Formats: sequence, C-alpha cells, structure tokens
Amino acid sequence: MLARIDNVVCTGSIVQINRDLVARGWPLFARRAEGCRFWDLDGKSYVDYLLAFGPIVLGYADPAINQAISRQMRDGVVCTVSHVKMLEVAEQLLEVIPGAEKIAYLIGGSSATTGAVHLARAYTGRELIVRCGYHGWHSWTKPGAPGVPPAISALTLAVPYNDLDALESIFKGHDNRVACVIVESNREGGPRAGYLQGVVDLCRRYGAVSIFDEVKAGFRLAFGGGGAYYGVQPDLATFSKACGNGYPASFIAGRRELFSNEVSLVATFHADLCSLVAIETVIAEMKRRDGIAYQWRMGQRLMDGINQACAEGGLSYRLTGLAPMPKPARDEADDARVMAMLTRCMAKGHYLHPNHHWFLTLAHTEADIDGTITAVREAIDETA
Amino acid sequence: MLARIDNVVCTGSIVQINRDLVARGWPLFARRAEGCRFWDLDGKSYVDYLLAFGPIVLGYADPAINQAISRQMRDGVVCTVSHVKMLEVAEQLLEVIPGAEKIAYLIGGSSATTGAVHLARAYTGRELIVRCGYHGWHSWTKPGAPGVPPAISALTLAVPYNDLDALESIFKGHDNRVACVIVESNREGGPRAGYLQGVVDLCRRYGAVSIFDEVKAGFRLAFGGGGAYYGVQPDLATFSKACGNGYPASFIAGRRELFSNEVSLVATFHADLCSLVAIETVIAEMKRRDGIAYQWRMGQRLMDGINQACAEGGLSYRLTGLAPMPKPARDEADDARVMAMLTRCMAKGHYLHPNHHWFLTLAHTEADIDGTITAVREAIDETA
Repeated sequence: MLARIDNVVCTGSIVQINRDLVARGWPLFARRAEGCRFWDLDGKSYVDYLLAFGPIVLGYADPAINQAISRQMRDGVVCTVSHVKMLEVAEQLLEVIPGAEKIAYLIGGSSATTGAVHLARAYTGRELIVRCGYHGWHSWTKPGAPGVPPAISALTLAVPYNDLDALESIFKGHDNRVACVIVESNREGGPRAGYLQGVVDLCRRYGAVSIFDEVKAGFRLAFGGGGAYYGVQPDLATFSKACGNGYPASFIAGRRELFSNEVSLVATFHADLCSLVAIETVIAEMKRRDGIAYQWRMGQRLMDGINQACAEGGLSYRLTGLAPMPKPARDEADDARVMAMLTRCMAKGHYLHPNHHWFLTLAHTEADIDGTITAVREAIDETA
Repeated sequence: MLARIDNVVCTGSIVQINRDLVARGWPLFARRAEGCRFWDLDGKSYVDYLLAFGPIVLGYADPAINQAISRQMRDGVVCTVSHVKMLEVAEQLLEVIPGAEKIAYLIGGSSATTGAVHLARAYTGRELIVRCGYHGWHSWTKPGAPGVPPAISALTLAVPYNDLDALESIFKGHDNRVACVIVESNREGGPRAGYLQGVVDLCRRYGAVSIFDEVKAGFRLAFGGGGAYYGVQPDLATFSKACGNGYPASFIAGRRELFSNEVSLVATFHADLCSLVAIETVIAEMKRRDGIAYQWRMGQRLMDGINQACAEGGLSYRLTGLAPMPKPARDEADDARVMAMLTRCMAKGHYLHPNHHWFLTLAHTEADIDGTITAVREAIDETA
C-alpha cells in the first residue's frame, strides 16, 4: 500500500495532515460514509466529528442532496451557455446572508479567498494583504514557504487573531498600502467582543477592504458565518465547505461596488450545476430542519459532556469556542495521556481529532453525541 | 432578467466571454444538455461544438458517468480520511499518460496550472514563469491586469507560440532565473515540427522545468494530450476539462522528483470522489469505444466538410489545426459575413463559435456532423 501511496501527492486529508494519527493506528482509508459515520477498509465504523474537514453539514450521502444531484445530472452538470440556476441560487444566498449584495461563484475554498483578495487589490489599487487564519493552499497564503518567491511573500503580512492593536500598527506602518485584511471570523476560542467590528472599522478608516473568511464558519454559526452571527458586515466574505455538503461549491458575497468587471473570476467550473444544486438543497434542508439551531444544540451537548468527563477524569483536554465548531485544546504536559485517550476513542469507533476544529451534522442524533461522551468517559478510565 | 444577472459576477460561460454573441441573439441561458446538444429556455436545441468550453467528451449527461456518480454518491463524495479510489485512479492515469510517474489531484484547470508552477518554483528555487497560452484566471497568468501587483506581474513573461528563438532569448536575457516554461501543447494551428521537443530541450539546457498545459488537449488529441500525441515528455503536465466529462477533476502528472513534499497542494476538494469516479469512467469508456480515434475521425469529417463549404461559398472562415479540437480562423475583411453565417447556423440549431477552439464528443454521430455541414452550406447561401 505504501508503494501505491507514493504514486500520488495530494491524498486528500490523511497522509499529509493526519500523518501522526495514522502512525498511531488511526484509519488510513475509508470505504464509505453515510450520515455522521464513515467505514474504514475493515468495515469498522466511526462517528465522525471532522466531517472531511468541514464540508459535510447535512450528513454524508444525504438523501435530499443525492436526489437533487441525481435529478440535475440527467440534465447535464455544465453547459456551453449559463444556467438560470446560477441566478436562482444567488437570490437565495442574498436572502440568507445579511448585507450581501452580489455573488461570485468559484470552486473550492482556496479559489474563493484568492478571488476575494484579487477583487480587493483591484478595488483599492493597493498590494498588501493582511491575513489571519488558514485561507487555503495558494502562494499568497504561505509567505516564506518553498516555491513562494520573496516578492510575493513580501506582499502578505500576518496579524494575530483578536488583536486590534497589532492590526492598527500594521496599518500605521504601511501607509496606504494595505489592500485588504482577510480574517477567519471564528478562530481559537472565538472572537473577543468587538473584535470583528473593530476589523471592519479599522479597514474603513485606513481605506482597506475587510474580508471575513467564512469557509469553515459559513452555514454553521449562521448561514452567513461568524460575521452574521455577531451582526458584523464586512466588505466581502468567502464561503465554501458546508454550503455544498461535499460538493466543491464556493462563492464570494459582499458589497456590490467591490465586484469589478475588470477582474476575471471566470473559469470552466465556476457555477457548475452540482455545486449550485447542492447549495440550494443545503439552504432548503437547513431551513426545513432548523439546521443552524440544531448544530448549536448538538454542539453544546457534546462540549458540555466531553468537558465534564475530562474535568472529572483530571484530563486537560477540552472543547473551546463556539458550539457548532468546537476547538480542542489541552495542556502540553498532558499530551501523551490525551493522545492515548483519543486513540482509545478511535478504537471504540469515535473519530475525535486532537487539534482541528470539530463539526456537527444534522445527522448526529442525541444518542450519537451521548455515545461519544460515554466513549470518552470509558477511554479516560481505561488509559488512566 | 438583466437586473437578476447583475446579482452575480461569474455567470459561467456566456455573459463575460460571449457577450457579443448574446447581443446578436445567441442563447443566454440553457435549460438542459444531453449527448451533443443543449436546449435553451425556449426549448430550442443546438448541436454543440463548444461543449462548455471543453469538459464534455463522452457527451452531456452521459449514462455511464451518471451511473458511476450515482453509485458513488450513495457512499459519500468526500471523507475525513482518504479513499482508495485515489490510488486506483492514479494507477490508471500513470498507465495512459506516457512518462508520468506521479499524480497530484487538484480541482479545476486553474488550480492545476497554478500548482504546477508552484512545484517548479520550489524545485528550481527560481522565480520567473514563462507562459504561452491561456492558463486560467489566477494573478500569475494575467500580468498587468487590474488587481495584479507589479511585483507579481514582473515574475511572468510571455512568449509567442511556435517560436523557439524567442524562448531562447528569454532564457539568455534572464540568467538562471526562469523556473519554468508553461505552454499549451496545442494552440493556433498546432505545434510546428520539433517545437514541443524544443521547449523541453531548452528548459533542460537552462535548468528550468517544462510544463505542458494539457487542460484543453488532454483526453482529446491523446489521453496524454499534445505531449503524448507528438511523443514529447515534459517534466510536468496539467490536465482538467475532458478528463472529468463535466465534473471538476484536475491533476498534475509528471516526473517523480518534481513533486516536493514541501509544497502543499492539499485542499478539501482535491481528490473529491465525484472527480475520481468521473476520470475512471472517462478512461474506461474512451478505451471501450476507442474514443480518441473517434474524435479524430469525427473532427476530420467536420473540418473537411465545413472548409469545403466555406471555400465553395467564397467565405474565408475555416477550421484549422488538429481535428479533435479545430480552431476557427477567418480573414478580418470577412468579419460581417462570417458572423451573419454563424448566427444563421445558430438559428438553425448549430452552436458554432466564431473564435474559440471547437471540440467533439463521442455522442456526435456522422449524421450530426453532416447536419452541421449542411446547415453551414445553407447559411452561406442565405447570407450571400
């Protein structure tokens, strides 16, 4: 198997990102996924809280999504001329995302963040990007990395999350050169009171474009992500992941004047019909099933249960931040015990990532959540 | 409808690229597509030779593709851990693409070309990109465009197609600074004898990475595109469009040593299962139906018929280049007559693009081709 793996570079999630977990015996390959579970090659199932790193929100292989895609595929999934669904879905997005005036479709989250930065540079005629968070794999997101020319690295500055003073210092130190600030709306334990509005206000004061990266938070904290949840409207916001429930939908939403016709965001698969149909179905199902509230409720149940179990077991592992996408944290001294506990949970059929944000789906039942909490309790006892 | 269109930026193919055609009454929106045809909102059908700008090669809504996607969607389309299909499809690609040693999956053509350039920069430790052709929408492909910082523009140089002297001059003028040359393998009338090998040889001599952009030519001229058709192996080649028959599959294939583990090409939807299943099905169907030979045969029939009709009608419009992706050409003085003729063909239900490469599918029958040739003959008479 290892020789075969050497034939491919991008092996999706596991080989690159979860290498340490695989070395501990966590599953390397999945055979199938349905609801809130996936099955590995041995047929063992896992209740999943990573959900392909975030795109699954209704559940894997959701029947409503499958039905909608099946219907669409009989009529074609791309076409020489545009499809009216592009307009219909845009109208639905403008309705559920507060303050959005216009939509640009792309494909995959990295394209959305890259497109938004491109729009901001064109709009301001400035060059510098100030970033905070993970915005994908493109060169502008990785200053100093192998293959990124110094001239490109020099155009991206990083700013710590929740630190408005640091952001203002950057503005003051780079007079009229900052094109945009792009920040993941919800990182770490969540934004401090006033932080997101502070980012927007500073951008306005210094003539830069504010961009909220809602790729993870969109369709989870609220349809409009962290910005919508906290009632703050940036100039642009980028979406992907949950909006398509596994299909590679992505889009930029924002103020009309930011979308310049001179910036080409056109590509063969931007506004592909599977993605549009997926967005439409996710919106409909989330509305019908009150899906945002459901994620909050299930996430809170999960956080409360796991945090109580860990506290009682004397383990520093804990879920922090906002309930629909809790962020694990732990004391460093506790590393070995936490990894032993989580590996035990994995063996019991619960995929609990040590570091990455967790997510919920509408397919997680209270029984699933409670089963996971019980597994954590047992695993703490068994690895004490 | 126009007010609704103003809600979206990227309207797929038509509003941005084919604006002139729409102004002449060509269809703005499609309702559905099947085989080699699409239907507009009025229910009028068009035999299509643009095929969503190239991704459709088996035919729209191809039954084998639909069946494979339907089967996959019941088992999930992305997952927390990787899927064995990633390895299986890589092995099939390595088999059909001569000289390829390793595969990196991405999503959409622009990501593949951008990823390849990134790999080349990391491998060489150099910065400059020499490009020839259309490589997508990212900033490095559009030096000088709005929103592209001068420092980024300065890193991309353009070279004319089929001109090895011009390419060597660039190498000589930029000592040890060129990271890669990326060239569409088949442009305009096709590569002159020795051109593609000359690109590879010059790159080798000057220590740069050779990249063939096979996004349009791959799975058409040959599975491996223009490089494979002419028996020339570049260091890297980029694929998308036809390999996925409408699903947003893309990948880089090339020499093993070029793929550095230090360059992250990982993203949520890279190696998504719909794309993998689509590639697998396209390969199987193309083999079963001898699809490459079929495209050559149908393309030649189309070129011969249309060129004869236009020549007899005294019209300078002609299809040039290689049969599976003929390139229209015309004398400028003939503009008005050509556009009138093509608009007449459109009215007769044949979508014949004035400028862009045309494509074929396995769904185009001889009768379809002959019908189009007849329409061209009639349209020439009617607009004489």
